[in-house]
Amino acid sequence: MTEQNHALPDADSFDPSASSLAGRVDQAVMDELLSIRSSIDNIDATLVFLLAERFKATQKVGVLKATHKLPAGDPGRESAQIERLRRLAEEAHLDPAFAEKFLNFIISEVIRHHEAIAEGHQASIAQA
Amino acid sequence: MTEQNHALPDADSFDPSASSLAGRVDQAVMDELLSIRSSIDNIDATLVFLLAERFKATQKVGVLKATHKLPAGDPGRESAQIERLRRLAEEAHLDPAFAEKFLNFIISEVIRHHEAIAEGHQASIAQA
Repeated sequence: MTEQNHALPDADSFDPSASSLAGRVDQAVMDELLSIRSSIDNIDATLVFLLAERFKATQKVGVLKATHKLPAGDPGRESAQIERLRRLAEEAHLDPAFAEKFLNFIISEVIRHHEAIAEGHQASIAQA
Repeated sequence: MTEQNHALPDADSFDPSASSLAGRVDQAVMDELLSIRSSIDNIDATLVFLLAERFKATQKVGVLKATHKLPAGDPGRESAQIERLRRLAEEAHLDPAFAEKFLNFIISEVIRHHEAIAEGHQASIAQA
């Protein structure tokens, strides 16, 4: 989806203690804040790699749909997904409305990809 | 964030083969589609539980900020997070622009929570 990153030149440039609050807060409060933020940073890295894996899967679906001329969206599938994610969110004590908003956010990106794959597929057929 | 779910009555109601394409596609194509979708469903469950964990962490940050009357947002932190997530996205072959959009989506929800916590905190002080 993006070009290979060979050097990762910025790997050491992230400052986990970057904050507009620096110097304006007690050190003990800042230490507690940074400790929680370090867990958030670990979770965010996991989310990015997991989302990358999800888009690898939906990319395969996009190629399958383009090859067989199927529509980019699948409303029957989407409503089953939303109902399941709302239930899982309740189990995880996450706001189900947020889980639904999150899935819609992801699905709209996926559909955009599927349409791009389908257009590319049509263009390559036209050229052949 | 949501009330305890005791019964999980819908646990068996999810149909992983739900699709508006059912009966309109070759069985072999449908089988391949369902196989990829089963991986997507596993990834989505992981995302929901991971997001729940992330909100548990940001909830702690919200309480800390409300207790010490710190602002809900932290622009210095947010720009460091965005730069790091864009770099991780490149490493994962995920569109960095999407990773940034994703983080902004999450952060705007978090700030909404922090403001609600701060309002609740102010209200409880006013009552005391």
